[in-house]
Amino acid sequence: MSKFKEDVEKVGIIGAGVIGGGWALHFLRLGKQVKVWDPAAIALEKFRKQATDLWPTLEQMGLAPGASLQNLTLVSSLEELEDVDVIQENAPEDLEAKQALYATFDSVIPDSVPIISSTSGFAMTDIQARCTTAARTCVGHPFNPPYLVPFVEVVGGEHSSREVVDWVDRFYTLHGKQVIKMEREVPGFIANRLQEALWREALHMVANGEATPEEIDTSIKYGPGLRWAIMGPCLTFHLAGGEGGMAHMLDHFGPSLEAPWTRLKAPELTEDLRSRMIEGCEKMANGRGVEEIVRERDECLIRIMKVLAEYKKQNGGGQYAAVV
Amino acid sequence: MSKFKEDVEKVGIIGAGVIGGGWALHFLRLGKQVKVWDPAAIALEKFRKQATDLWPTLEQMGLAPGASLQNLTLVSSLEELEDVDVIQENAPEDLEAKQALYATFDSVIPDSVPIISSTSGFAMTDIQARCTTAARTCVGHPFNPPYLVPFVEVVGGEHSSREVVDWVDRFYTLHGKQVIKMEREVPGFIANRLQEALWREALHMVANGEATPEEIDTSIKYGPGLRWAIMGPCLTFHLAGGEGGMAHMLDHFGPSLEAPWTRLKAPELTEDLRSRMIEGCEKMANGRGVEEIVRERDECLIRIMKVLAEYKKQNGGGQYAAVV
Repeated sequence: MSKFKEDVEKVGIIGAGVIGGGWALHFLRLGKQVKVWDPAAIALEKFRKQATDLWPTLEQMGLAPGASLQNLTLVSSLEELEDVDVIQENAPEDLEAKQALYATFDSVIPDSVPIISSTSGFAMTDIQARCTTAARTCVGHPFNPPYLVPFVEVVGGEHSSREVVDWVDRFYTLHGKQVIKMEREVPGFIANRLQEALWREALHMVANGEATPEEIDTSIKYGPGLRWAIMGPCLTFHLAGGEGGMAHMLDHFGPSLEAPWTRLKAPELTEDLRSRMIEGCEKMANGRGVEEIVRERDECLIRIMKVLAEYKKQNGGGQYAAVV
Repeated sequence: MSKFKEDVEKVGIIGAGVIGGGWALHFLRLGKQVKVWDPAAIALEKFRKQATDLWPTLEQMGLAPGASLQNLTLVSSLEELEDVDVIQENAPEDLEAKQALYATFDSVIPDSVPIISSTSGFAMTDIQARCTTAARTCVGHPFNPPYLVPFVEVVGGEHSSREVVDWVDRFYTLHGKQVIKMEREVPGFIANRLQEALWREALHMVANGEATPEEIDTSIKYGPGLRWAIMGPCLTFHLAGGEGGMAHMLDHFGPSLEAPWTRLKAPELTEDLRSRMIEGCEKMANGRGVEEIVRERDECLIRIMKVLAEYKKQNGGGQYAAVV
């Protein structure tokens, strides 16, 4: 029997930025009581407005019984999170600051409350280094926006208990997430390593004038990226092999892997490269603010996930993770 | 005035495999007369069956007036392609064989017929090296399946005329493709460089036991890949930067680019790695043959493209490339 609560009612969120706010919305949609703490009062106020703006999006995804913005409480001190059932931590990516925060948890947050970090870069072993209640800490790394994109990577640190890692896996899975539980810590986890390799090459191409940011985006969204919502790169290449599948594909195209197509070290982030990236994005934004593009992304994401969920259901494939 | 025909009626296809067959279906859907030549009679017969099987998929995408399987002719010699308006070449990725084929074009195919290569790996400058009518040759690199995925990369070789490159760009754009016309030859063009960087890291992770092929695919299709049908990596990161957009993102996460997360050289394709990749795909295929997975992919692709097309239309964004 786990010492962690199985039937979560109250979720604590640390940090009210893009990711923390996104998690708060996810749990509000699922009918939870959500307390959000951010040391910056202005961040909390911004999030309150954002929550109201985004509520119609959550309604489109479908609200759980009892889900309401009334269940959101903004709090001004960490102490006020002491009565929640689980905490999702989204503090800035600053290792020292995170270590200090986790040491504070020891005295402020009861040991029966699992603490999950959204960190995209640090190993839990490092984050929990100064924490004496490290056994209840774990990484749960989401993708933006956490209120829609289902994937989460779960991995414990050296001092995390097996119990907490299993609990977090179960907790997310029950709450609409598609989880991979990793057996060991790998820098960047899985998806960010894959993304980062692609991103590095994209920056090189822009730096060398081989492609503009608009061309990078067009090449992905009308090409390989169009397929990747349906199947990942492995199964995609399995099909590229024709009837021979992955075996044929590896035997046929394997040697071309050795060709030094792509640059290996990251390019220097010069002023020039920085400007090209920013200008390219501004061109694509075409006068639209981030909020407006977010609305477009969310609208299309929901429609696409509904298509995938419907297909899965019609074909006896079970439930699509995000559509709870 | 271009010497190439603007109003294409007859398309010649060389090679009846996954890509050649896919192009043939694309042009059949758009109401063209299509002649397919493959030196292997069995490949032609296989394609005839495949065309019949896939016709309902094309119907779902929407047929142009006059589109019919009756417009498909399978031919047993290259000479029979002499009366087409354009040729899409999909011979195996063997540079010497392609060079020999392009030299043959000189005497067999009138110089007023543009010849486009689907090559994913070679530069047109190399392919056209032994061809005296090189001015009418050009690369048009598609993504699988060409009868659905809209993206094509267009780039000429050293001896390609500006005229043919512009013509191919126009031809594809008029025929439902989203084109990037590249100003210079870059090995792997754009999207394959990006894909390859990601794929190399995926192979490393499988080789090192850090992730299985199933985990790689899950991490992409429920994570970053879910977003990439809507917006590419640049605009995605623009949103990750919050209100500060790409500028904030680069300034904040730029330094982490330097972290040596991902392995840089391709892993050796050992027997063990080969087996893991194949077994992983077989597990995901779960007894389904390639044909069945293709059906699933196509069905979902069409539904997703219709969602994106509808969104674009509703919001005054014009037409989505593939939905002609």
